[in-house]
Order: sequence, then structure tokens, then C-alpha cells
Amino acid sequence: MTNLDGNSSPKIHVETPPVASSAPPSVNHRTSATNSGGIGGILRRFEREDLMKRGSLALRGIALLFSLISFIVMASNKHGDWRDFDKFEEYRYLLAIAILSSLYTGGQAFRQIHELSTAKQLLKPRMAAMLDFFGDQIIAYLLISSASSAIPLTNRMREGADNIFTDTSASAISMSIFAFLCLAASALISGYKLSTQPYI
Amino acid sequence: MTNLDGNSSPKIHVETPPVASSAPPSVNHRTSATNSGGIGGILRRFEREDLMKRGSLALRGIALLFSLISFIVMASNKHGDWRDFDKFEEYRYLLAIAILSSLYTGGQAFRQIHELSTAKQLLKPRMAAMLDFFGDQIIAYLLISSASSAIPLTNRMREGADNIFTDTSASAISMSIFAFLCLAASALISGYKLSTQPYI
Repeated sequence: MTNLDGNSSPKIHVETPPVASSAPPSVNHRTSATNSGGIGGILRRFEREDLMKRGSLALRGIALLFSLISFIVMASNKHGDWRDFDKFEEYRYLLAIAILSSLYTGGQAFRQIHELSTAKQLLKPRMAAMLDFFGDQIIAYLLISSASSAIPLTNRMREGADNIFTDTSASAISMSIFAFLCLAASALISGYKLSTQPYI
Repeated sequence: MTNLDGNSSPKIHVETPPVASSAPPSVNHRTSATNSGGIGGILRRFEREDLMKRGSLALRGIALLFSLISFIVMASNKHGDWRDFDKFEEYRYLLAIAILSSLYTGGQAFRQIHELSTAKQLLKPRMAAMLDFFGDQIIAYLLISSASSAIPLTNRMREGADNIFTDTSASAISMSIFAFLCLAASALISGYKLSTQPYI
């Protein structure tokens, strides 16, 4: 009996299953770490989502600031005679889009701050992700369109004379372009957020 | 020894697994079938991905056609005197972007057709999805920017005189806008495809 025990126990040695031994080499790089399951991956995902949420809020906030400045600067661009912004359709277009962008980014930032502070969703997550993605895209297209329609006109005016009117227009245009850059980046983040929605 | 064998062998009768009998009723409705696992869901997903692949190829092909027309029409827009497209920076910009868009969509369509016909990936799937998404976005932004910079100039010219030069410019601009619409839709599909990549 003791002989049998002594013989059989050394023979049983727990083999590491082949799955476990083949997994580690693929876990080496950071990207595939979510694969390994475990709490680390889930925590990392939560962290990343939190970072995304804050990043998207920051980008929208900056876009709101830039489009507000663009709107105010362009709306105050009246210096009498031919130097009124509303005598040129490009500037009127820029102003209209700057107002639209301010409203959109303001509304989105308000919604996000509300959700962060009360931890209550105003919209269904999937609906919100769709709205984010399409809204950001459309406003970004409109902003780049209005800025590029106003640039050649301002360029041509500045060839003739360089006065306070053309300078103010140029600054409003550049603010619109900055707002566009922020919203284009925000659209990328929204695309990622849409992709983490379970069923599309 | 023979008794043991005789007793044990009749008891083993192969049961039909319960999975096979319970699966058919849940496959009835189309939407919830993906939830129930099963082959139906996987097949449907393959079908949808195939549709997306073909849709994206079709959109790129149409965008290629439109940007080629825009490029050719604008490049041939020389009627002597002041009616040359290269005397206006907006039209030069439009031409440059139309060429860029033709090259990009042509290259992408070539890659997609090559992959469909040989079933061999030229790029890694994730790399290809990233390239699709960012490339479509950037070219779409450039197209809308060039079109909207050329519109006011053409508008102003047509107020004065409506001749072959302004008509040709207007048609080149509208072709660019159609190419933009196709690429914007393609960017949405690419965003979806990027979202189905397992690790982002």
C-alpha cells in the first residue's frame, strides 16, 4: 500500500494545459491585453472609456469656445460703408454656421456635463452614440465648408487693402477652422464610441 | 471480464443532443437570431459584411467616376483671355483635389477588386480598416472644402455674364460635390467596418 502510494503519487504531476502555455506570447503587446480576460482588461477598458468621455467633453468645450469667438467676432464686424460683413454672402454663411456650431457644441457639452454630474443618461446610449457621430461629422463638414468659402474672398480683399475689416474676418475664419479641427477629432472619438456599442 | 463488458455496452446509447432539437424555433425571427448563437447568425453576419464590402466598393467606384469627370471637365476649362481656369486659385484648388480624390478612390477600388477576385488581403485587415476610415474622411473634407471655395466665385461671375466658362466650372463643382457625398457615405461604412475589427 505504501509502495503503491509512493509509486503512484510521483507519477501524477499536474500538466499545465497547452492553452495556458501558448497564450502568454500573444499577451506580450499591450493591444491584445484585453484578450486575456481578467480584471485588468476590464479595468483598463473602463479607464479608457472614462478618458474618452472626458476627452470628448474637452474637445466639445474647446470647439464651443472657438465657434462662439468666431460668431461674436464676425457679428461685430461692421465698420460702415462697404466694410460690413452682411454685404458678403460668404461672411453671412460663416456667421450662420458659427451660430449653428455654437448651439450644437453647447447642447452636447451641457448633456455630457449633466450625465457626468448626475450619472443619469438623458438619451439611450446607442441613440446618443449615433447622435454624437453624425452630429459631429455634419457640423465639421459645415465648418470647413464655410471657412473655405470665406478664405478666397478675404485673400482677394487683403491684396488690395489691409484694414480692420479684413483682419477681423481673417480672425473669425481662423477661429472657425480651429473649431473644425476640434470637431473632426471629436468625430473620430465618437466613431470609436459607436463601435463599442454592442449591436449596430 | 466478459460479464462486465456485456453489462456496460448495452447501457451506452447515443442521445441526440438537446441543442439540435431546440435550435430551430429560435431561428424563426430574423433579428434575434444573432443572439441565439447558431449558424444562422454567423451566416447573416457574413452576408452583411459581404454587402458592406460591395456597397463600399460601389460607392468608391461612383466617387472615382465623379472625381474623374470633375478633374477632366475642370482641366479642359480653357477658353482664352480671362476665361482660363488657371487664372483663379479656387479652380486650381478644385482641380488639385479632384486629381487627389481620383488617385485615392482609384487606388482603393483597385485594392478592393483585387481582394475580391483573388481572396488575398494586400494589407492587414486592421490596417486596411484604419486607412479606409481616415482616408475617406480626409478626402471628403478636402472635396467639400474645394467645392465650397469655388462656389462663391462662380456665383459672382454668373451674376455678370453666363458663358461656357462659368457653365463648365459649375458642372465641375457639382461633380466634386457628388464625389463628396459618395465619400462621406463611404466614410460611414468604413467607420462601421472599423468597429467590427476585434481590437481597436
